[in-house]
Amino acid sequence: MGDPGGIGPEVIVKALADPDRRKLAHYRIYGVESALRLAAEHAGITPFWWRVEHDSQLLETTLSHDVVVADAQGMDQDRWAASPTRKGGEASFQFVEWSIRDALRAEDDPLRANAIVTAPICKEAWSIAGKGKYPGHTELLGTRFQAKRVAMFFDTPQFRVVLATVHIPLMEIRNRLTIGRVFDAIDLGHEACKRLGVSRPRIAVCGLNPHAGEGGLLGDEEERLIEPAIKVAHEHAMDVRGPFPGDTIFHRALKGEFDLVVAMYHDQGLIPVKLLAFDEAVNATVGLPVIRTSPDHGTAFDIAGKNRANPGSMKRAIDLAVRMAGWGEGSTAE
Amino acid sequence: MGDPGGIGPEVIVKALADPDRRKLAHYRIYGVESALRLAAEHAGITPFWWRVEHDSQLLETTLSHDVVVADAQGMDQDRWAASPTRKGGEASFQFVEWSIRDALRAEDDPLRANAIVTAPICKEAWSIAGKGKYPGHTELLGTRFQAKRVAMFFDTPQFRVVLATVHIPLMEIRNRLTIGRVFDAIDLGHEACKRLGVSRPRIAVCGLNPHAGEGGLLGDEEERLIEPAIKVAHEHAMDVRGPFPGDTIFHRALKGEFDLVVAMYHDQGLIPVKLLAFDEAVNATVGLPVIRTSPDHGTAFDIAGKNRANPGSMKRAIDLAVRMAGWGEGSTAE
Repeated sequence: MGDPGGIGPEVIVKALADPDRRKLAHYRIYGVESALRLAAEHAGITPFWWRVEHDSQLLETTLSHDVVVADAQGMDQDRWAASPTRKGGEASFQFVEWSIRDALRAEDDPLRANAIVTAPICKEAWSIAGKGKYPGHTELLGTRFQAKRVAMFFDTPQFRVVLATVHIPLMEIRNRLTIGRVFDAIDLGHEACKRLGVSRPRIAVCGLNPHAGEGGLLGDEEERLIEPAIKVAHEHAMDVRGPFPGDTIFHRALKGEFDLVVAMYHDQGLIPVKLLAFDEAVNATVGLPVIRTSPDHGTAFDIAGKNRANPGSMKRAIDLAVRMAGWGEGSTAE
Repeated sequence: MGDPGGIGPEVIVKALADPDRRKLAHYRIYGVESALRLAAEHAGITPFWWRVEHDSQLLETTLSHDVVVADAQGMDQDRWAASPTRKGGEASFQFVEWSIRDALRAEDDPLRANAIVTAPICKEAWSIAGKGKYPGHTELLGTRFQAKRVAMFFDTPQFRVVLATVHIPLMEIRNRLTIGRVFDAIDLGHEACKRLGVSRPRIAVCGLNPHAGEGGLLGDEEERLIEPAIKVAHEHAMDVRGPFPGDTIFHRALKGEFDLVVAMYHDQGLIPVKLLAFDEAVNATVGLPVIRTSPDHGTAFDIAGKNRANPGSMKRAIDLAVRMAGWGEGSTAE
């Protein structure tokens, strides 16, 4: 649910109000039911979920329902503040922990979660609640799942992008970009494409420098780091080409030449994603033992509780999780 | 004309074959007439130019003509090789020198050139001809005009972009980006927009780091270099805002919020330019005492002499030069 004081409850209710979406999977909402109920009332939506106290023993009784709310009644508030609060931080942190608990269940456990869709949390609230060690969901999930390799992956109607580095200062790339890091991005992006039903993904790798280094004249990272990573990918029989100049490769991907572009850093990958698919892009964390997607907006406290939130991004995050988990139409994975 | 063995002559002939374009300015082609004549013959175009021997004394007799070829007959070849040659390098270098000579004439000299449009040269040919000191037109022009501040500027149907740094390794930015450099890009981009008829350009400046540094968490160049440069621009009464995250600002510019985006490096500016306007973008060198534009392709030796070259980019380069020189419709500059 994310922070109960943000727009999380509202976009969840609005996204799952569509009966067709509810048929795609079994959904379990970790949160407080009162917030969902309020959002539904504001939006004129009839509650469509089955409520149960969050305790995991009770969840077993709910397996036949499409949408189950694992209600954290004991944590609930009369009114959740639309601002960074300790209560909001504690609750939203706990919700993720429960989802992780269920994602970590054995393969054959009927209560196992195959995918986690995270609604927005407030970093400041986590910090107030003493969880500041984790800047966000991604870091918490990485720690709990002991994931050694994680990458950010973006799906758009036009193409897909995976990032070799993400939230670091641009000049820090020189200390962070390694052959292994580039290869991991290729490998994890490759796997994500396969999950999305692309049986043999055609992958383009960006250079780091202008004109992909122009044969070494404009930087040597292509030769030192990127080409060796591509070579390793070839040894794994992947269809990978590059390094290509960043300024022309997205045009080629747009024309259909590639299924995935591996970008070396945040803006290189996200400028094209947001320019072409500002309202349609959806991101996933790849490399975890569970599918994880999230909408690309924050808690939006300024419009929370006003029935003004657009559920589009949450819908796409849910649909991507369903597709990646191999339940959706058009997918051949698993 | 650029290299006579490349597609320069062909795209010049095709671009100026349009009588409407010929009405916009007085054109002087520095090159060899035989190459133009051959291209016209292949394309079924009736020669439309007035030829005169390149000597500048003779040029004075041609002022009433729309298109004059300053013919370097003495340098001509029976057949220009479609490959890097010493002759091609010498000739194309000399053509630029003549154009610079005419651009350097006094304001009131009727032979003065107000704008230079450069057709593609071959870097290797310049090197063979002993001109390797200059990797290309931009460096030669910068030296001859003793320009202290030069920037690359791109015009697209959607927005305009100017670059603070260009052809350097990405990790070299830490040694090259300065307050002055960022300010120069803002200032020169501002001036170019005014030349294009935007009386009060609305300018957005990109950050260098992801999320424009996120308040210092992801790098300090925004605070150290970019914000001070914006402050200087404010002192010059320019309408400048930022630094903005690179991954969302182009979307805002596309929606019409800004006339110009100042990018910190090559790919940050050129990924959006080429993605949105692959076949329509045209670039100018700003900061020189003369307007300078060029098509965005090379000599294309592989298709030279085959009447297969597309003159679109040359047309746009010419039209941009005309607009920036203040002769075109819709311009209020000068």
